[in-house]
Amino acid sequence: MFSKIDHLGIAVADLDAALALYEVGFALHVHHREILEDQGVEAVALEIGQTTIELLRPTREDSPVARFLADKGPGVHHIAYAVDDIVGTLAELKGQGVRLVDETPRIGLGGTKIAFIHPKSTFGVLSELVERA
Amino acid sequence: MFSKIDHLGIAVADLDAALALYEVGFALHVHHREILEDQGVEAVALEIGQTTIELLRPTREDSPVARFLADKGPGVHHIAYAVDDIVGTLAELKGQGVRLVDETPRIGLGGTKIAFIHPKSTFGVLSELVERA
Repeated sequence: MFSKIDHLGIAVADLDAALALYEVGFALHVHHREILEDQGVEAVALEIGQTTIELLRPTREDSPVARFLADKGPGVHHIAYAVDDIVGTLAELKGQGVRLVDETPRIGLGGTKIAFIHPKSTFGVLSELVERA
Repeated sequence: MFSKIDHLGIAVADLDAALALYEVGFALHVHHREILEDQGVEAVALEIGQTTIELLRPTREDSPVARFLADKGPGVHHIAYAVDDIVGTLAELKGQGVRLVDETPRIGLGGTKIAFIHPKSTFGVLSELVERA
């Protein structure tokens, strides 16, 4: 069902300070930087093996990442799993009784199709499905 | 420096309930299960692509994972990075001013060499280095 971890979303308050660690200290390569207005975040993607670390900085106070920072402090905000068929996977999970945030996919970073599973069904770990073109 | 994400440690209160999601719902394969007395956890490792998800259940109330659950609730407890030379990597990070929990490696799940970087230096994300034999 899940071929790999597509990316890890990490909530940070200060993107430049976090980049000094991940890009300079950890020597990871930045391959994408984008502001996602509908999610209220600025995201920087860094390659690591077959997956990606996405540093997420809130761009407004009412965004989900801003609420996460206020509630839990900086840390891993979500795990995203790569799937071949996001619509089919959502149907399969729903059939198993898994609660979904998104019943149908929406558009994520770099034009991917994404959908979130509800943390109530994933023991506090916000989990995302990603289908890349 | 880091070739891939070695594993993600996820703190859970109920290991069997979490396994029902990750092993059955997400169809991931369990490849290891072990109690680590010195860390106060029972760990179950599930394969996903080139990395591993480790579900971590505290075995005693004073363990770091128990304190994490009490403080933040269930969620991603740490990110572990694969390195070829853990002693050299620790020296390099220390030279960059990165604060370390372990100045020298100790033994982790499956006999690996591990060391933790301090979350104060990693923006709230407890980060681990892993050297496999």
